[in-house]
Amino acid sequence: MVDREGCIAVIFMSRLRDPAPGYAETAERMVELASSMPGFIGIRSMRDADGSGITISWWRSEEDIAHWREHPEHLEAQRRGQEEWYESWHIEICHVKKAQSFPP
Amino acid sequence: MVDREGCIAVIFMSRLRDPAPGYAETAERMVELASSMPGFIGIRSMRDADGSGITISWWRSEEDIAHWREHPEHLEAQRRGQEEWYESWHIEICHVKKAQSFPP
Repeated sequence: MVDREGCIAVIFMSRLRDPAPGYAETAERMVELASSMPGFIGIRSMRDADGSGITISWWRSEEDIAHWREHPEHLEAQRRGQEEWYESWHIEICHVKKAQSFPP
Repeated sequence: MVDREGCIAVIFMSRLRDPAPGYAETAERMVELASSMPGFIGIRSMRDADGSGITISWWRSEEDIAHWREHPEHLEAQRRGQEEWYESWHIEICHVKKAQSFPP
């Protein structure tokens, strides 16, 4: 486990519309693309059967997140998310102050 | 949606052993108990069929989190978690710098 103290965590919580055609493919592509961006550290995603989801991604700096936010393919995915897929979303940009793991 | 800028988010990621008898009842009780603590703002939890889970709780201050961490019933749940339920866990204490929602 990378020591994540000092990193930036982006918490993204959403609820999908039902149906949300094309969402799954795009989400998969965005994980692939984000993983190739400078400053990307990791990502963890979970979605309930009711369409609620949590995705947390970790980045080296807010500047790296700004670059990712403005990637053309990501901008297009954000536009489609807003117009076609998400009923609602909430995002938080967080500074990781302490981290601990078990087993250590 | 409460404006969470300036709050502390606790990201707790875990993997349960299989089986984990008594875990579900204790988890439910801990949500109830945490919700009654000073400085508690909210909690969001999700668990996959494979036993992986993410719980995020939001607090007013690190001091409030310290009180919650030391609550006797919570200490006992932490002990059992370590000894009986969790295969692994990772926790991060984060300062929420920016938050945004849709619909606004």
